Amino acid sequence: MPNQIPADSVGLVTPQTHRFTAPLLLACGRTLDEYELVYETYGQLNAAKSNAVLICHALSGHHHAAGYHSMDDKRPGWWDAYIGPGKPIDTNRFFVVALNNLGGCHGSTGPRSINPATGKAWGADFPMIRVRDWVASQARLADVLGIDVWAAVIGGSLGGMQVMRWALDFPQRIRHAVVIASAMKLSAQNIAFNEAARKAIVSDPNFFDGDYLAHNTIPKNGLAVARMIGHITYLSDYAMGEKFGRDLRSGSFELGSDEPVEFQIESYLRYQGDSFANTFDANSYIRITKALDYFDLAREYNDDPVLAFKQTQAKFLVISFSTDWRFAPERSHEIVNALVGANRAVTYAEIESKHGHDAFLLPDERYQQVFGRYLAGVKI
Amino acid sequence: MPNQIPADSVGLVTPQTHRFTAPLLLACGRTLDEYELVYETYGQLNAAKSNAVLICHALSGHHHAAGYHSMDDKRPGWWDAYIGPGKPIDTNRFFVVALNNLGGCHGSTGPRSINPATGKAWGADFPMIRVRDWVASQARLADVLGIDVWAAVIGGSLGGMQVMRWALDFPQRIRHAVVIASAMKLSAQNIAFNEAARKAIVSDPNFFDGDYLAHNTIPKNGLAVARMIGHITYLSDYAMGEKFGRDLRSGSFELGSDEPVEFQIESYLRYQGDSFANTFDANSYIRITKALDYFDLAREYNDDPVLAFKQTQAKFLVISFSTDWRFAPERSHEIVNALVGANRAVTYAEIESKHGHDAFLLPDERYQQVFGRYLAGVKI
Repeated sequence: MPNQIPADSVGLVTPQTHRFTAPLLLACGRTLDEYELVYETYGQLNAAKSNAVLICHALSGHHHAAGYHSMDDKRPGWWDAYIGPGKPIDTNRFFVVALNNLGGCHGSTGPRSINPATGKAWGADFPMIRVRDWVASQARLADVLGIDVWAAVIGGSLGGMQVMRWALDFPQRIRHAVVIASAMKLSAQNIAFNEAARKAIVSDPNFFDGDYLAHNTIPKNGLAVARMIGHITYLSDYAMGEKFGRDLRSGSFELGSDEPVEFQIESYLRYQGDSFANTFDANSYIRITKALDYFDLAREYNDDPVLAFKQTQAKFLVISFSTDWRFAPERSHEIVNALVGANRAVTYAEIESKHGHDAFLLPDERYQQVFGRYLAGVKI
Repeated sequence: MPNQIPADSVGLVTPQTHRFTAPLLLACGRTLDEYELVYETYGQLNAAKSNAVLICHALSGHHHAAGYHSMDDKRPGWWDAYIGPGKPIDTNRFFVVALNNLGGCHGSTGPRSINPATGKAWGADFPMIRVRDWVASQARLADVLGIDVWAAVIGGSLGGMQVMRWALDFPQRIRHAVVIASAMKLSAQNIAFNEAARKAIVSDPNFFDGDYLAHNTIPKNGLAVARMIGHITYLSDYAMGEKFGRDLRSGSFELGSDEPVEFQIESYLRYQGDSFANTFDANSYIRITKALDYFDLAREYNDDPVLAFKQTQAKFLVISFSTDWRFAPERSHEIVNALVGANRAVTYAEIESKHGHDAFLLPDERYQQVFGRYLAGVKI
C-alpha cells in the first residue's frame, strides 16, 4: 500500500464475524444448523438506520471490498475504486456492509469449515447453495445489524443476481437495487464455460471427489485451468490485444529454433491461474458457479420476467458495459425491458468500455459519475 | 451412412499413403529424414493437369474430407457438404486432393509415428511444426502427383492460413486462393484460449511431459477439457442457445433437492470432450495449436501485410461468417484490405450465419452459392 492511506480511502478496517445459531433451511432442502458470516462495514450507521447499503460479491469476491487490513497491504479491497469518502458509494453518507457469502472460502462458513456433526471439514459434503440462500443469510445479517431496510443493495455480475433476488424475496427491505453487468439467467454459452472450468477441477486427480483436504492436497492444476478460462472471458478481445498483443515473453520468432515461443499473454494467464489456485477452494468454486448456472429470475413466475418484477418494490439502476461479452448489454436490456413492463422505476446506463466484464471493477469516469449521481439521489 | 450412397457423393474412397525419403528441413531448424503423408483424391486429374484443387484442413480435420470409407460409415468426410459432383468444389470438374498434415494423428507422420532413429514413437520429441512446413510438405505431394500448379488451394480457419502461406511461398504454383473464416494472425484472446487448452493437457498427470505412450496411457481428461474449451468458442452464443438453451438433461429445478441439476449443454460438451480425447493425440494437439499461434503472415514483411501480399500472384476468394467470434469478420476485412492495398484480385463475402466459426463446415445456401459460383469461374 502507499506510505500513507489515501484521503479517499475508508482506511484500516477489521473484519467481523457473526455466528448464527438459528438453523437455515437451504433451497436444496438441507439445513445448516449454525454458520458464521464474516463481514466488514465502512461509514457510520445513522440514528434512523436508513443509510445502510449492502454489497453483494461475485464469483471471486469477498467481504474485503474497501480499505486496508494493515499498513503492509499491497492492495486495498476489491471495490475500493467505488467505496470510500466522496466515491460513488460515499461512506460520508452511507453505512456500507460487505460480507463473504456462505459456501465461500474467505471466512464465512463453507466447504473448508468444520462440520459440527463430524468434527471434520465439510469438503464435498457441503450443501449446494443457490442465490436465494445467500440473500436469506444476508437478511439475517441485516437483522443482527439492526437494519430493517437497505437504502440500496448493490452488486455486479453474480452480485447483481443477488440484488435482483433481494428485490423479489424481500421487496419491503430494499429501496434501491443496483444491478451491474448482470443477467436474469445465464446463456448456454456461459453455462458451458462454467462446465469446462468445473470439468478441469473434478478431473484433477488431486480433487478426490471433493475430499482433497482429507488427502492433504488441493486440485491446483484444475483450479488454475478453471481460472484461466474464466479470466479470458472476463476480458474483452480488444483489452487483451491492447494489454498483450502478440508480444513475446522471451526468445524470438526466428526460424531455426525448436524452443517453443512464449507469448506474454500465456505467462500472464498461467500466473493468474496459479495464484488463484493457491487461494481459492475448489468445492467453493463448484458451488458458486453452480449457483450462477441455476439462477433464473423468472422460473417460478411462468418464465415471465415482467410478472417476476411485479413482485418488487425497489427502484432500479441497471448498468452494462459495451464490450462485456460474458454478461452482454443485451442481458441488461432484458432486465430493463422487464422492469419497464412491470411499471417499475429504472435508470439504465450502458458504459462505453474496452475492458469487457471486468469493467465493473475498474475505474471509469462515466461509470463513476452515473453510479455516484444515482446514489447521491438516494434519500438517507 | 444411408442405405445407398447419395448421387452427389464422391462415393467410396480409399486413402493413399506416400513415403517421402528426401529430408525435409523444418522451420524450427530440425530435419525430418523421411515421412509419410496420407491423402485422398476425388475426381479425375485432366490431361493438362490444370484442374487440381488442394484442401487444407484445420485443427481437428484430416485427409478424409469427402465420401465414405465403407458402406458401414455413419458419416461422410468432414467437408462432404462442399465436395462432390455438382457441389461447390465440383468433382465433375476438379481433381481434389485432401491430406492429413504432418504432425497430425490421422495417418501422416506425427508424434504417434515411429522415430526411425530410436525405433520408438516420437512422442514429445516430435519437432514443432509451423504452417510453412505443412505447405512445403504439400508442395512435395503436388510434385509426386505431377501437379505443377493448383487451380485452387482452399481452406478454412487454420486451413486458410495454409492457403495464404501457399500464395506467399509458391506464388507460381497457385492460381486461386480460397481463404475461409481465417486470419493473418491470431489475437491475444485466441492465443489465450489455446494456452488454457494446452495447460489442461500438460497438467494432466497422464501427460508425462508428452511421453504418455511410453507409459501406456493418454491424458484423456486434459484433452477433453481442451476440446470443451475449443468447442464452446467454435459455436456462437446464439447457436448454443438455440440448440440447448437452459434445457435440463434430467432431474428438476424444484427446490428441496441437493442433486446437482444438469443442463443438456453440459452433457453434450462432456460427450464431445470425451470422444475427442479418445481419438486425438495430445502431442499433435499441442503442435497444431502452436502452429496456429505462431502464424503471422506479415511478420517477415516488416509487419506490413500489403508488402506480404505483393509477393503473391493468386486471385483470392475470402469468406467470413457474421457470428464467428473466434475468427471474426474483422480479421477477413484485414485480409481483404491488405490484398486491395497490394492491388491483388479479391472477392469477399460475409455470410450471415448463426453458427459461429463452425459455419465454415455447415451447409448454407448463400455460402454454397458464393463458393460454387466462384469456383465455377476458375479455368481448368
